[in-house]
Amino acid sequence: MKTLLPTPLKYQKNKLSFEGHDLQKIMKNKKTPCYLYSKKTMTETYKAFYSEALKAKIPNPLVCFAVKANPNHEVLTLLKKSGAGADVVSVGELKAALKAGINPQKIVFSGVGKTRDEIIFALRSHPYGIYSFNVESIEELEMINDLSKKENKVARIAFRLNPRVNAKTHKHISTGNKTHKFGLLRSDIEEALLNDSLWTHSTLVGLSIHIGSQLTELKATEKAIKEMCDLAMSLKYPIEFLDVGGGLGIDYTEEDRKELASIKTYMKAVYQSLHRHYFKKVDPLLIPRIVFEPGRILVGKMGVLVSKVVRTKQSEDCHFTIIDAGMNDLMRPALYEAYHEVYPYEKSTKLISTDIVGPICESTDIFGAQRKLPRLKSDDLIVIDNAGAYGRSMANRYNERELAPEYFI
Amino acid sequence: MKTLLPTPLKYQKNKLSFEGHDLQKIMKNKKTPCYLYSKKTMTETYKAFYSEALKAKIPNPLVCFAVKANPNHEVLTLLKKSGAGADVVSVGELKAALKAGINPQKIVFSGVGKTRDEIIFALRSHPYGIYSFNVESIEELEMINDLSKKENKVARIAFRLNPRVNAKTHKHISTGNKTHKFGLLRSDIEEALLNDSLWTHSTLVGLSIHIGSQLTELKATEKAIKEMCDLAMSLKYPIEFLDVGGGLGIDYTEEDRKELASIKTYMKAVYQSLHRHYFKKVDPLLIPRIVFEPGRILVGKMGVLVSKVVRTKQSEDCHFTIIDAGMNDLMRPALYEAYHEVYPYEKSTKLISTDIVGPICESTDIFGAQRKLPRLKSDDLIVIDNAGAYGRSMANRYNERELAPEYFI
Repeated sequence: MKTLLPTPLKYQKNKLSFEGHDLQKIMKNKKTPCYLYSKKTMTETYKAFYSEALKAKIPNPLVCFAVKANPNHEVLTLLKKSGAGADVVSVGELKAALKAGINPQKIVFSGVGKTRDEIIFALRSHPYGIYSFNVESIEELEMINDLSKKENKVARIAFRLNPRVNAKTHKHISTGNKTHKFGLLRSDIEEALLNDSLWTHSTLVGLSIHIGSQLTELKATEKAIKEMCDLAMSLKYPIEFLDVGGGLGIDYTEEDRKELASIKTYMKAVYQSLHRHYFKKVDPLLIPRIVFEPGRILVGKMGVLVSKVVRTKQSEDCHFTIIDAGMNDLMRPALYEAYHEVYPYEKSTKLISTDIVGPICESTDIFGAQRKLPRLKSDDLIVIDNAGAYGRSMANRYNERELAPEYFI
Repeated sequence: MKTLLPTPLKYQKNKLSFEGHDLQKIMKNKKTPCYLYSKKTMTETYKAFYSEALKAKIPNPLVCFAVKANPNHEVLTLLKKSGAGADVVSVGELKAALKAGINPQKIVFSGVGKTRDEIIFALRSHPYGIYSFNVESIEELEMINDLSKKENKVARIAFRLNPRVNAKTHKHISTGNKTHKFGLLRSDIEEALLNDSLWTHSTLVGLSIHIGSQLTELKATEKAIKEMCDLAMSLKYPIEFLDVGGGLGIDYTEEDRKELASIKTYMKAVYQSLHRHYFKKVDPLLIPRIVFEPGRILVGKMGVLVSKVVRTKQSEDCHFTIIDAGMNDLMRPALYEAYHEVYPYEKSTKLISTDIVGPICESTDIFGAQRKLPRLKSDDLIVIDNAGAYGRSMANRYNERELAPEYFI
């Protein structure tokens, strides 16, 4: 099993196991397709993330899990127990985080489209509201301040700075460029700070950046942190926290394995950039807390999609392995042209070249083209790896298919 | 409202109406985002489709609605009342069709991934099973024949011929090419016909083709029909039906309006191709029934996605209109780079250039870039047109958002 990060998958005597248990035994009374998640891999990854932050001397790190990556209740409960907060982007995610027992004072609310109802719900979720509204436009701040006034509250605000950097990632999940809908330009933030009417029932407590997901190299992150630090240095009052966003990737492909920064390297780079552009310039007592918004890195590797072969099909020189999971279960290949490793239950040295396709009536319902796999037969188990993040959370019922169940091992 | 086909949308005194009713009044007690469907537009389109088939002298047409386009119960019930059958691709869709009262003898079952359970359910759904299994591989036929034997039935089989044509459409929804997972090559069909062991509990009743969705021109369709006719002519016994598939498009864009064949032109072309390559060569008593599998054309225009503006955002020279519908409600722009017209409730001559974006934290959550729209404000209604097909059926709960409700007007 090639991977840079901990994974629950392993071949034992040429049979695939998940967290040390034989996959066929695990699947005995389970229907396919389904998601399998590993508690151990997830909590270990969280602990590694948090402890590497401490080791890199990141001050008082708060790790807010990006709920959109996997809003499963048990995922949130386990992360809560490990000490995580939450980064939410809708009232649905906020409710899921609260239901898992996450303290509102560890919740940041991101997203360009927060509605009135969502803002009111967040303000009411705790005497002090939530930890922060990560505000994406002046128009949003205006709405939050108005609603906060009506609710007789003071909203805690962080500006999401648009740092004008282009992150190297898929165009659909890059978010820090000027023409994107996300964040605020520095000039707009500075103007807003001078407009007292925006601050009657709001208070600036932080700044944030988020430049994309599945980032493999760190230059864009470092540059974005510098931009945020420069802005923070120019503020009249010290702020409580700097939110460096999420986005550290996982290794889906061989190329990723060459490029991907480790958690340790990432934390070092984050610290160095913060230190150089902020910490060393200010009174140590005024050094802010650092917030992270990791999603994929915490849950991507801990989950797999398990499927069964329906049948194979030979059409002249084209061979197809038709499985019972479809693009509705895992949208990433169809939506992002994303690559996922596929593993058969039984390892073999006799391999053929085959297209692994689902049952959906679209050509895009394909999990891998011309992959090297053994010649499989009906009911053989097959596993799509690295499906813990943005897998089940984007699943749909296209073709009137049932949603795949999720099991924790 | 620019459109070639009937639409429920119309501006009346510069206010948008749906099926003659003021949109704001319709939406008075409804939450956004939601889908609005027009019974009238749908049933009229179905009638036009069926009557143009008759006018073109298509023999005994059976219109099997492609349920995947919109599996809403009321949609299926209304189409059933109009006389439609169903083209299903899963047991979920088969159950939905049966629940709407559609006779199993008007149901064809397509798709490469039919499982054992699905085949058994279909065989048991009627004393004679369903009208046809549209078989996509020899391996599938083998499985159906085996199960049919166990069930003591005779399965009705149509081969889906891979006609080796390239349809002009989006690469994701083109399905008639050799390297696609769909259909059977002629040589494989001929070999299967000689293999008696495949036919102990199955009988060949038809042939089918389906070369893609949202086709705008007819040359590929004509060529595919010719291939199917050639094969049918070579068979030793006459068959009951020829299934010409679906795929006739609707006009989403100005370009579509230039290229799109009308239903009338389509039916003429289908008839002429069938006549030239089959009907005129055989005894009139042996002319088969013609099956159609339209989806998009029947329901695409009858539905819209209604949303409200959350707020607007100006970022230097970029203007964003942020609405409360997201890519999770309508996947087509993100998944197929599809174009949908967007209409404000109030028409105006003062227009700005704006990006219409949703609340989802992905750059791909955009319904239209640099569209000409009036300057809108929070709570203004906005409508995304042509959303009746492949809209709600692909919706998901990403970002823990609720699924949009559907209303019939």
